[in-house]
Amino acid sequence: MRFRPYRSAGAEFSSDKELKQAIKSILGYRPGNIFLYHLAFLHKSATQETNNGIKINNERLEFLGDAILDAVAAEYLFKTFPTKDEGFLTEMRSKIVSRAMLNKLSQKMGIDQFIQLDSGSNAAFRACKGDAFEALIGAMYLDKGYDFTRKIIVDRIINRYFNMDELVNQDVNFKSKIIEWAQREKKQSLFHVVEEVGSGYKKQYIVELLVDGEAIARGQDYSIKGAEQNAAEKSWQKINGETIDL
Amino acid sequence: MRFRPYRSAGAEFSSDKELKQAIKSILGYRPGNIFLYHLAFLHKSATQETNNGIKINNERLEFLGDAILDAVAAEYLFKTFPTKDEGFLTEMRSKIVSRAMLNKLSQKMGIDQFIQLDSGSNAAFRACKGDAFEALIGAMYLDKGYDFTRKIIVDRIINRYFNMDELVNQDVNFKSKIIEWAQREKKQSLFHVVEEVGSGYKKQYIVELLVDGEAIARGQDYSIKGAEQNAAEKSWQKINGETIDL
Repeated sequence: MRFRPYRSAGAEFSSDKELKQAIKSILGYRPGNIFLYHLAFLHKSATQETNNGIKINNERLEFLGDAILDAVAAEYLFKTFPTKDEGFLTEMRSKIVSRAMLNKLSQKMGIDQFIQLDSGSNAAFRACKGDAFEALIGAMYLDKGYDFTRKIIVDRIINRYFNMDELVNQDVNFKSKIIEWAQREKKQSLFHVVEEVGSGYKKQYIVELLVDGEAIARGQDYSIKGAEQNAAEKSWQKINGETIDL
Repeated sequence: MRFRPYRSAGAEFSSDKELKQAIKSILGYRPGNIFLYHLAFLHKSATQETNNGIKINNERLEFLGDAILDAVAAEYLFKTFPTKDEGFLTEMRSKIVSRAMLNKLSQKMGIDQFIQLDSGSNAAFRACKGDAFEALIGAMYLDKGYDFTRKIIVDRIINRYFNMDELVNQDVNFKSKIIEWAQREKKQSLFHVVEEVGSGYKKQYIVELLVDGEAIARGQDYSIKGAEQNAAEKSWQKINGETIDL
């Protein structure tokens, strides 16, 4: 598949040379196959078609980069925190690779300015930053391999932009913990409102967490969000108690 | 951290030599650091304590191996299906790394016979097979690195135990697709019963899918499961329609 430079509606054109220099200054190395990096910045709103009629954008690279980033973050945390359990590692990783964090990183590193998207897509611009960040990791991986990519992620991204102590102390979101746990265990987690009690400003919500259809715990609060956190915290304790008993 | 052979209640003891031979026959290579492989088979019910009081079992390795397996599967699918979109790749990966599939693999490959667990834990035995499989991948990765691990996973596992054509044609589970999509997009998905209509054998459920709190679509069926699938299928079409419009 040969890549030809393009200019999509509203998108800024980047020449090969310009993009190579940008990658060098942002990530510290000269790309080999520059096509991959052009592709990493090609938002789906600016999807291109190859000579043989295949539609291309950065979504496939994002899928790959997401997985590579997860693996590198997993190893980094595994080695940085040798005595912490897997619950801690999972939670830390979810903080590092959260969409909000990746969007912010994309902007801080100046990656976002290379994203090509359709001029009508400004509303989607925020979300596409993190996507392009992941796609860039995917491109780097295909271009340079795993060990190289791991080194760049650790040296140029994690060590520069993350403070692990701060991250450890960041507020614990029990709902996220439950969701992460369920993903890891390949279980289906579902928070649902089972009842509303009282009315007006005294109205409270009762939320239940189901894991694979089985009720784990209920929480109650004046907001659904609060009731979810409450149910999640109780469930978290219950799950951890139970798994120790296994 | 030095590892000392152990015999936990009800668990079979594996000597270093025995385990090395088993890995050689199952995966085709001689392990370097055999401690890692012992650890990979150490279920949390048989948790050990090191000399300096740190509790060890296979959960940390499982966390790492899960991420490495996801990355290898992502790349394998990326390269095997060069013209398929990321929705297809995500779905295929979720079929490959499903807990049920990993449990089955663990058994087929004969990995399960090395798992050390407390004698009271037979109920948990089924689930722990897939966990040990992932932990073994984590051990292999730490012992031999990414490229080696990728080659073993592709040559000795994917190519031997998976038929991609069959996997492509496996029934599509729209609820799984939605959940996978939401995970990838870092969104929170929630299927909840909003209404029950009729009664007795004519009772039907109306289930709604919320994505980050926003209602996407509703489905109706005589079972909650059916209504969920229905809501998921409608939502899938809607989401894909919408994302193309972005």
